[in-house]
Amino acid sequence: MIDVATQSAWMEELLVDLVQAPTELGHEDAGQAIMARAMAECGLEPRDVWLDAEALREHRHAAPFSWEVSGKRNVVATWPAAAPGGRSLILNGHIDVVPPAAAELWHSPPYVARREGDWLYGRGAGDMKAGLVAILGAVRALREAGVALCGDVHVQSVVEEECTGNGALQCLIDGMSADACVLAEPHPDHLTIAQVGVLWFHVEVAGEPVHAAYATTGHNAIEAAHTVLGALRELESELNSDPPAPYDEVTHPINLNPGVIAGGDWTSTVAAQCTLSCRLAMYPGTDPAQLRRLVEATVARAAQRDPFLAAHPPRVRYDGFTCEGSVVSLDEPLVRVLSDAYARVHGAAPGLRPTTATTDARHFVRNGIPAVCFGARAQAIHGIDERVSLASMHDCARVLAHFICDWAGVAG
Amino acid sequence: MIDVATQSAWMEELLVDLVQAPTELGHEDAGQAIMARAMAECGLEPRDVWLDAEALREHRHAAPFSWEVSGKRNVVATWPAAAPGGRSLILNGHIDVVPPAAAELWHSPPYVARREGDWLYGRGAGDMKAGLVAILGAVRALREAGVALCGDVHVQSVVEEECTGNGALQCLIDGMSADACVLAEPHPDHLTIAQVGVLWFHVEVAGEPVHAAYATTGHNAIEAAHTVLGALRELESELNSDPPAPYDEVTHPINLNPGVIAGGDWTSTVAAQCTLSCRLAMYPGTDPAQLRRLVEATVARAAQRDPFLAAHPPRVRYDGFTCEGSVVSLDEPLVRVLSDAYARVHGAAPGLRPTTATTDARHFVRNGIPAVCFGARAQAIHGIDERVSLASMHDCARVLAHFICDWAGVAG
Repeated sequence: MIDVATQSAWMEELLVDLVQAPTELGHEDAGQAIMARAMAECGLEPRDVWLDAEALREHRHAAPFSWEVSGKRNVVATWPAAAPGGRSLILNGHIDVVPPAAAELWHSPPYVARREGDWLYGRGAGDMKAGLVAILGAVRALREAGVALCGDVHVQSVVEEECTGNGALQCLIDGMSADACVLAEPHPDHLTIAQVGVLWFHVEVAGEPVHAAYATTGHNAIEAAHTVLGALRELESELNSDPPAPYDEVTHPINLNPGVIAGGDWTSTVAAQCTLSCRLAMYPGTDPAQLRRLVEATVARAAQRDPFLAAHPPRVRYDGFTCEGSVVSLDEPLVRVLSDAYARVHGAAPGLRPTTATTDARHFVRNGIPAVCFGARAQAIHGIDERVSLASMHDCARVLAHFICDWAGVAG
Repeated sequence: MIDVATQSAWMEELLVDLVQAPTELGHEDAGQAIMARAMAECGLEPRDVWLDAEALREHRHAAPFSWEVSGKRNVVATWPAAAPGGRSLILNGHIDVVPPAAAELWHSPPYVARREGDWLYGRGAGDMKAGLVAILGAVRALREAGVALCGDVHVQSVVEEECTGNGALQCLIDGMSADACVLAEPHPDHLTIAQVGVLWFHVEVAGEPVHAAYATTGHNAIEAAHTVLGALRELESELNSDPPAPYDEVTHPINLNPGVIAGGDWTSTVAAQCTLSCRLAMYPGTDPAQLRRLVEATVARAAQRDPFLAAHPPRVRYDGFTCEGSVVSLDEPLVRVLSDAYARVHGAAPGLRPTTATTDARHFVRNGIPAVCFGARAQAIHGIDERVSLASMHDCARVLAHFICDWAGVAG
């Protein structure tokens, strides 16, 4: 019997430390330092996989990025097989978190880990620092129990899952591979076997600035951006009208989100510019280049509704996610072996579900490494008062510990 | 015959220096240093009138402001009367400029003074650094010609005309007064005898942030802000439906401008917040407090159209202009004497017009000092490639020189 409970205190302390590191984009390293230390506390030798801007910009599956990535690292470690004959495994999680949305709406500061009963509150607690902790908790429990495996187990703490996926991609460029991958995303009670692709695009809408006293002689970019958004909402409706399997059983699978808007530079000047940053999903099988063309055609169509915009067409810029969806066959041994491990802990098999989100799983699937998501139970990810169930984190570690042994095989 | 042409080179050099000082809000002092030097070059003794945050916050006609004003000064100087019996005068201009709207759309950088024929390009060239130059050009020409006056002439270079009017107000709090005031705003060919009031308000709209993958379970503040804007546009229409004189002869006198928008903090998070900053005008005679109530009622009405907003009502915040309109009687001696001076230079009387903008004139009018605007010919103020006619600046100086003599009376 595998006893992960020996790691409970260590895991909860690690989660608190990780949550209190505000690892937003560009500030991931405080979290990676903690992960390196924690991997060492598992008896592993952590290694840095540095992001290589040039290699990423040349890679056809990298997402475009306008920011600096030099000096940014994934932290990885390998628990090497003690004997041959087993299957290798990647256990992956991301250290980066999204911003708090509205810090003043939180009941406690987003980067203070607050415990209330079984819930641990904080930005990133669920998405997905508890998943990183569950991975290391499982590995540490097995190693302290003297387990030796027949396959390599690689743990990965990657950056930029929330904006590009280029962290996980860098690990693959670096040569990391395995027979399967589990991403400990906050997908509890089920394995995620399909995911959408995601496109981030930024529509830059022009206006004609004039003094507000003569506003009707100008053209307001803020209102023009709304015209464009209206057309994009129509595209979203079209994309949801006839979903292919497995998304035909999902309500509203394709979500358009105008996530950030910024326009104008003076209250008494008609806005000259407005940038609307959107996230739009696509089904597995859709080429992201095809969705880009659809978005551009939609923006162009919106511009035709307005003579000023027709003469000053909005520009669509890409920065962040340009990624395809992916699907894992239900026949994959990974699905069966992980389901069995789950059933060993929970008494019943997990669900097998598609998600309307994207994750780093696509990179592994694209490289021939079957990959599913499974993790702790979280609430309000990307929302206010994000929280994770500590019991579910410990359960997840227990499932992973069983799975590691079953997948890699125990030596001797 | 008054010869202002002696000052042409000095004036044009001064204008170039002023335009190249990027005196946006919070950065006015580079311009005020130049103005102090220029006043000294007129043989005047410049004096600083420091903004007093406490005095302003207590003043019922000050506009609210959230930024630091300590260390911010108006620069003023008095040309004292050499003999009694004449009328005193304030010649006023503002040193602050609005931001460039979209610097990359300019044909030359906004804070590089570029001359092309009669046009001098640059942010603030017209609004209203050419006006400040015309004032000093007139004063310097008269003083160098040995003119002595029977009334004091006060020149004022004030801050914050573009956002609060608190600079000019501070001069009045400081005790400056006169029998009339001319503001050398870019209102050519006419005297501006009425102006609207202006309210700046900032609507803070709440959303319910969730992961973009489940966007329909949240509430997007960016789109909610547009709902609010729709209701405000209805209010604008109502306000334009039956304009009182003198605005009954003006097309669309009341302009609402959504000048700045900022919302959301992550492309893949449903926006939790959106702030829409608006400028809305009011007719002379409207109490700004009454317009505030109308705006708040309109925002509340918009919120009732949406269950989420009804439960999370948008907040209206005031920062910047809260100012009434003002009107000067056509019977004022100021109007006749300045019109006569204009006719002396141009051969015909100027128009007498209301404007759909606000200016610092209201503070003087409220304090019993008749005040009109008259100045150089500008194009694209608050727009792209703002420019001013140098010939019109020199003409304006000529008119002001005549007017100063006629109004104050020449001694001896």
